[in-house]
Amino acid sequence: MMHSAMPNWLAKRAFLTPERVAIVDGKVSLTFREFHESVQAIARKLARTGIGKGDFVGLLVENSYRAPQLIYALQYVEAVTVLLNIRLTANELKWQLQDSGCRWLIYDAALSTIAEGLKTEYTTLSLLSYSDIVAQEEADVALATELSLESLHTVIYTSGTTGYPKGVLLTNGNHWWSVMGSAINLGIQEQDRWLVCVPLFHVSGLSIMLRTVIYGMTMVIHRKFLPHEVNQAICQDGISLVSVVTSMVTAMLQELKEEGYPVSFRCLLLGGGPAPLSVLRDCRDKHIPVYQTYGMTETASQLATLSPEYLDSKIGSAGKALFPSELRIEARGKVMEFGEVGEIVVRGPTVTQGYLHSKQHDQETFSGGWLHTGDLGYMDRDGFLYVLDRRSDLIISGGENVYPAEIEAVLCSHPAVVEAGVAGIPHERWGQVPVAFVVLSRCIDQEELKVFCSENLAGYKLPHEIYYVASLPRSAANKLLRRKLLNLLP
Amino acid sequence: MMHSAMPNWLAKRAFLTPERVAIVDGKVSLTFREFHESVQAIARKLARTGIGKGDFVGLLVENSYRAPQLIYALQYVEAVTVLLNIRLTANELKWQLQDSGCRWLIYDAALSTIAEGLKTEYTTLSLLSYSDIVAQEEADVALATELSLESLHTVIYTSGTTGYPKGVLLTNGNHWWSVMGSAINLGIQEQDRWLVCVPLFHVSGLSIMLRTVIYGMTMVIHRKFLPHEVNQAICQDGISLVSVVTSMVTAMLQELKEEGYPVSFRCLLLGGGPAPLSVLRDCRDKHIPVYQTYGMTETASQLATLSPEYLDSKIGSAGKALFPSELRIEARGKVMEFGEVGEIVVRGPTVTQGYLHSKQHDQETFSGGWLHTGDLGYMDRDGFLYVLDRRSDLIISGGENVYPAEIEAVLCSHPAVVEAGVAGIPHERWGQVPVAFVVLSRCIDQEELKVFCSENLAGYKLPHEIYYVASLPRSAANKLLRRKLLNLLP
Repeated sequence: MMHSAMPNWLAKRAFLTPERVAIVDGKVSLTFREFHESVQAIARKLARTGIGKGDFVGLLVENSYRAPQLIYALQYVEAVTVLLNIRLTANELKWQLQDSGCRWLIYDAALSTIAEGLKTEYTTLSLLSYSDIVAQEEADVALATELSLESLHTVIYTSGTTGYPKGVLLTNGNHWWSVMGSAINLGIQEQDRWLVCVPLFHVSGLSIMLRTVIYGMTMVIHRKFLPHEVNQAICQDGISLVSVVTSMVTAMLQELKEEGYPVSFRCLLLGGGPAPLSVLRDCRDKHIPVYQTYGMTETASQLATLSPEYLDSKIGSAGKALFPSELRIEARGKVMEFGEVGEIVVRGPTVTQGYLHSKQHDQETFSGGWLHTGDLGYMDRDGFLYVLDRRSDLIISGGENVYPAEIEAVLCSHPAVVEAGVAGIPHERWGQVPVAFVVLSRCIDQEELKVFCSENLAGYKLPHEIYYVASLPRSAANKLLRRKLLNLLP
Repeated sequence: MMHSAMPNWLAKRAFLTPERVAIVDGKVSLTFREFHESVQAIARKLARTGIGKGDFVGLLVENSYRAPQLIYALQYVEAVTVLLNIRLTANELKWQLQDSGCRWLIYDAALSTIAEGLKTEYTTLSLLSYSDIVAQEEADVALATELSLESLHTVIYTSGTTGYPKGVLLTNGNHWWSVMGSAINLGIQEQDRWLVCVPLFHVSGLSIMLRTVIYGMTMVIHRKFLPHEVNQAICQDGISLVSVVTSMVTAMLQELKEEGYPVSFRCLLLGGGPAPLSVLRDCRDKHIPVYQTYGMTETASQLATLSPEYLDSKIGSAGKALFPSELRIEARGKVMEFGEVGEIVVRGPTVTQGYLHSKQHDQETFSGGWLHTGDLGYMDRDGFLYVLDRRSDLIISGGENVYPAEIEAVLCSHPAVVEAGVAGIPHERWGQVPVAFVVLSRCIDQEELKVFCSENLAGYKLPHEIYYVASLPRSAANKLLRRKLLNLLP
């Protein structure tokens, strides 16, 4: 019989190393003992409101120490946290809350307007602000000092490039294995401090909160991503690990001073889609230890990550599947050889068992016990994964496959281009053709840019039009939203 | 449903980091790729001999790279390795092989005499020397690229202070969780090299072989424990972690040069029973990072280990139960408060599900889902474990409990005493009284030693006799065998 019970993670950590610093958030600094005590109090207050085992509870909070407090408190009362993206509209939030059957919505004071607006449309929803909870008396209940790896921990709706968002079910076990897989690859060092400047409502931020507690490491929370503050934290505050997406790296590099980062900075974990080689090379030249990673909500964060010794020689690759996980490339139902492009298909203990209210379509996603990610990539001869694109963004032009990310990478490598997005538009002759949307750092003639592209791309890949725009549509996690690019058409 | 399948550990490691050095054994140095290829070849040769899934196979080999080769090869063909102590007599080996139903015995050339002797008494046993195996052709079989955490990995007979030895069943899952629990406490650093100078047929050595593969770390094998060679490996060969028992530390300290160990040496993992405070203090004075640990075969190695920040302030403690595990003190069926002495009782995913051919007595050992270790200890107010003694060695004198380890610690703290062992002998008036066996470094008058004891121990704890001996009886793992002390009586 498999062992599925284990000590509550935060309780165990607070017992093991009570005096280590757990969380730094501006002027707030909490040891694991203090953090655990605050979480226990909040859990007992939540119990007083009636929240208990198996309840789905919406959480709408900004990045601050209150987010991990609430998430660990909900784990303690064995409730399931439905993590809500604070950039969503009221309609989108309402949809997710109703889809997951939440009877409670916990929110930050800063988000009270949208929360209270929701209440008028969703009358059975109980609103609980952070201060409402703090004002409760503590219920006299025994908190769950053990947890089951089989129990649900979180529901996170995926941004979903098409159709309605789907609630990804993540168990304690999915998260635990993810935390272990990451440790085996990145190591655990005594002086480590992990900076959170990605949203804690995304799996990228959530997973940091879980790792730091299980490893006994300090988590430093930034409420917003401000590149000079991140650089300062790395250079002066002993930050050793930071999780980011590409656009954040670009901003950090622009702000970075001549002297670069100190050696204590050992890992820039770069997720959120394939990064342009130009950015990666720039990092390499500046001795920045970029670990490109491939993962998604459905895999509870990192599924594959480059290993330390391959940062240089396999630049551009997202590495290999982490220790407990497996990855292969499939096309037309067959496993591809090295070098052949196909769908990235993954399996392992971090992979979600499925979506809330799983539908027929979802069963296909998990056929044969493998998650069919919809992402495109290939493996090189040594087994390293190269992610090409989200399949749903694929442009098919004259029977040829055109991958937007490839065109974007070329555009970004031009010195005058800050960022670029590519999408397909209908075309009478070729079916689809790519068009590009570009943010410039200085004025440049369109023709010059087209010539630059034609020097670096096959004819069928050349953007038919290049539009200069002020900014690109991005998700809260800073992922480029290619499906929204066409809204920018003049 | 819990996830119990995962990639074969060695195959996965060789895929992830093929060029890292896996094993150094004298002049032999193998990368993970080379090690994996050699193991695959041996696995296919084993398959040719008929060894396959679920077979119990005895392994009688000295410390060398061949031991991990054979153990990983047996895992690959899904056989169960019965690890045999090479110091056992033929009768003892025969008993274990028959008890576990082994039809094969794999052995080293150096141990051919005893292996061949066994064959004459155990005619259904097939003998396979290492060179017999190498001489086989490889069978054309598919090796198991996945393993189940629920499958048996090893059977190890416990030395058993009383009665017949019992075969402890350890699954892949027991080992996996042990490897993870250790990582969370000790960390994983890029330059780590773990030295094996304890027997690979004991769980202490076996667990190093598992950790280094899963972590992607180099394992350096010493065929015998030679203190000056261990010191040299630490000082000149970049060894960062070493697993030892107390008597080995003492020997290492005696050989240690003035300048001490380099900072690259970050962990001396000290198991095998409570260590005298005098030794621990000596290490502290010499800035040696001793991590006292508590574990046994039944817990797949470490169950509790001191955390880095408590090496000084909690000297003498074996720390707290590792992240996935739990520990408490019981007496008369009740859980004890802090400071109260009782039996050490443990639970968690590293704990064996039981013994081979489990008997009524064994079921009591596991009552309530907790393993009753038979060891005595207490927890201090902060929850740190102090191991006092093996309960079976407990001396009860005039109704008072006398713990041999406490008396031994006092004796060892005398400058003329190298090591000491204490056992109980029958006594007309008090039931039992302790007597001591002492190894001296220089001549000293018995009376002086008795006075020294009486200054440090309550009257009922004083040894009635002190015998000077040349050496103490120890197991292959260098544990003091108190039950054999009385054989030394003049």
